[in-house]
Amino acid sequence: MRIVIVGGVAAGMSAASRARRQNPDADIVVFEAGEFISYAACGLPYALGGEVEGSDFGRLVIRTPGQMRQRGISVRLGCQAEGVDARAGTVTVRGPDGATRAEPYDRLLLATGAEPVRPPFAQTDLQGVHVLKSIPDAQALDETLRDAQRVCIVGGGYIGLEMAEMLRQRGLSVVLVERMPEVASILDEPLRAPVRAALERGGVDVRTGVSVSGLTGHGRVTGVQTDAGLIRADTVLVAVGIRPRTELARAAGVTLGASGAIAVNNRQETDVPGISAAGDCAEALHRVTGRPVYIPLALTANRAGRVAGVNMAGGDATFPGIVGTGIFKTFELGIGLSGLTQAQAEQAGLKAASVDLSTTDAAGYHRAARPVHIRLTGEKGSGRLLGAQIVAEEHHAAKRIDVIAALLGTGASVQDLFDSDLAYAPPFSSTWDFPLVAADRLLRLL
Amino acid sequence: MRIVIVGGVAAGMSAASRARRQNPDADIVVFEAGEFISYAACGLPYALGGEVEGSDFGRLVIRTPGQMRQRGISVRLGCQAEGVDARAGTVTVRGPDGATRAEPYDRLLLATGAEPVRPPFAQTDLQGVHVLKSIPDAQALDETLRDAQRVCIVGGGYIGLEMAEMLRQRGLSVVLVERMPEVASILDEPLRAPVRAALERGGVDVRTGVSVSGLTGHGRVTGVQTDAGLIRADTVLVAVGIRPRTELARAAGVTLGASGAIAVNNRQETDVPGISAAGDCAEALHRVTGRPVYIPLALTANRAGRVAGVNMAGGDATFPGIVGTGIFKTFELGIGLSGLTQAQAEQAGLKAASVDLSTTDAAGYHRAARPVHIRLTGEKGSGRLLGAQIVAEEHHAAKRIDVIAALLGTGASVQDLFDSDLAYAPPFSSTWDFPLVAADRLLRLL
Repeated sequence: MRIVIVGGVAAGMSAASRARRQNPDADIVVFEAGEFISYAACGLPYALGGEVEGSDFGRLVIRTPGQMRQRGISVRLGCQAEGVDARAGTVTVRGPDGATRAEPYDRLLLATGAEPVRPPFAQTDLQGVHVLKSIPDAQALDETLRDAQRVCIVGGGYIGLEMAEMLRQRGLSVVLVERMPEVASILDEPLRAPVRAALERGGVDVRTGVSVSGLTGHGRVTGVQTDAGLIRADTVLVAVGIRPRTELARAAGVTLGASGAIAVNNRQETDVPGISAAGDCAEALHRVTGRPVYIPLALTANRAGRVAGVNMAGGDATFPGIVGTGIFKTFELGIGLSGLTQAQAEQAGLKAASVDLSTTDAAGYHRAARPVHIRLTGEKGSGRLLGAQIVAEEHHAAKRIDVIAALLGTGASVQDLFDSDLAYAPPFSSTWDFPLVAADRLLRLL
Repeated sequence: MRIVIVGGVAAGMSAASRARRQNPDADIVVFEAGEFISYAACGLPYALGGEVEGSDFGRLVIRTPGQMRQRGISVRLGCQAEGVDARAGTVTVRGPDGATRAEPYDRLLLATGAEPVRPPFAQTDLQGVHVLKSIPDAQALDETLRDAQRVCIVGGGYIGLEMAEMLRQRGLSVVLVERMPEVASILDEPLRAPVRAALERGGVDVRTGVSVSGLTGHGRVTGVQTDAGLIRADTVLVAVGIRPRTELARAAGVTLGASGAIAVNNRQETDVPGISAAGDCAEALHRVTGRPVYIPLALTANRAGRVAGVNMAGGDATFPGIVGTGIFKTFELGIGLSGLTQAQAEQAGLKAASVDLSTTDAAGYHRAARPVHIRLTGEKGSGRLLGAQIVAEEHHAAKRIDVIAALLGTGASVQDLFDSDLAYAPPFSSTWDFPLVAADRLLRLL
């Protein structure tokens, strides 16, 4: 049996490892277009900001091609998959020498990942204009930052907010431009202002409700043109989201979902026999809505890759789905969310109610106590827990979103959350930790 | 209707508040033997250690008698309940003036709490020998510590370990004596040594496997006699556990459980009609074993008090039970546990398996990453999640025990834990957060 995997980062390498464990005899080949495999892309902002020992991007590499080869997995770098003949069971691969070959497969995994969205203004030859998704992206940005003074980040999502902190940590001036009325627009409205406040306390010049129309400069960028005037900058980081790489899937005749990412079943199989997909190119089942969504995150890619690997190698694994958990840090703030926001619940046609609670993470009288805000959302009538959002001034407290994430996976109710025997000691929480207090209040509205 | 509550700390005041909300017309009277009500006893070590603004014990008081009176709850301080006539429906109360009165009740709550165990050696007139459970205890200890230099803590449980840090923070020499072979003996054996190591790094002289036989001194204590010789100390803190105060319950003919604490049903009712019990004097249902246990903790007392208050006032509430969650901090270390340890599971007759995992709380390449150890326990055959123990060098990471606590409340399996969509970003966790990795490994053993 020959298993061919296109893409060698999170999903692809997880699949390869699991397939090997499942089937010691299979031929397993990974074609990776770039020069790096199996790296922690989420660590790139931190390597850029000096939070990784030696600021070494190599430390983000979890396993090298050599280590994979020792496990009997063939890794071919610089190999671009350009087409699939699903009837013949071959994938056309262009190698580093420019020549193409038809590579046969019994099972094919599309783990082609995602690419940063580049709006028209960012499709430029100007130097100093960057995106951040891969190690080469980070290396190029790092090079630019060495003689930078003033950086304009376009986009106030995860990457923009993480990078704002890291660039300030490098001593740079930072302007952050966001098209929406507020940063962190994934959160419900009441939680966004504290995020902006943390950015501003950290010295970031935040401009919201501002659209970028173009760039200025000759050779190197000198400014960002917006509907609110020109923003001077010697470096521009475009962080307006990512989109799934689906060219190969389309070439293979694989059906895409409504999100534009590859549609898969709970075994990570596409609708073309023999072809699976996993990671940032694919949808995943949202366990709260029961519908497929495109929320490309690292843990999802790892899980889906494992499931795909087991199944391609003849095993039987299923992906349980996600609940949309995310977390990020910007300056002292931790921001966590899981399940549905009130806005998302309404979009999904659910009758939802939310409560907001501002309190402290530790006992109020303890010196360590810092402000925390939680918004908890439940379904009216059924009492089902739908989701939560946490903004915490001591960033670790945002990780308590995991309590909600774990309960959402079991279909728990708000009452179940309230009944949870959460840990209490004064340096860690109030007697009733804030998720419990929020649950108590929400119960009265459901 | 007249509701009489004996004991005005966590359970008693929670009950009073809930009873008032449930029944605006009831007479509600609280008799408290001491001078303080409604205070956070768990905060006492932190007030002693300077972690509370102004080191003010008053800041631990959540509500004053005056505030309770404004809510129509009568609070009588310095009133010792000495007897109950359940047939007549009266409780005999000795007031501050020394006179006793028979106070009639329709519903009586025993919220008499617990008292520190005082072994024979601690039953002494020597000055400088202390226990720590109440505000007066803390005030007396604080006074002694002002001219102290060398403190011997007897007992390596929660209070002993918390106080070891706080006393070092006050600049004192600290010797900790523990009878068992290791401190933190509530944990399974592999997790105890790191706790000892943290104490020793913090400058505590730890002596384990040592039994105390007596004290030396005239007027003020000068030393602790042990089976391993004399330990010089000008102050001794005896922290060898607490026991439920059940004199009044026994006087009322209320049945005690096997633990020695008051047996209650899930409405917090005793077996004597009209008499309920809640808090540190009562047992609680352990949801993992389905059996009553005596694990006196603040959240349990608050919950049980609320349930008792609602029911006494004519409502209908049930206590869901606990899962035995606890957490504490000593020096940089956070220690969390929930459910059953391997030892407890075996004592309960369960076929249990455990895995130990030593990793980091944040992504391994991130500067913030600190060592963390988790032991996860599940039931063979059924695959049921039974419990976890976490020892974390960045103390916040121990609060991730809440994921296990929440899942235990829903009867979840180890697979459910593994399937949990926990939050990941490099400053917070590895892609697979450590509870997930532990679950993955444990699944292979079940």
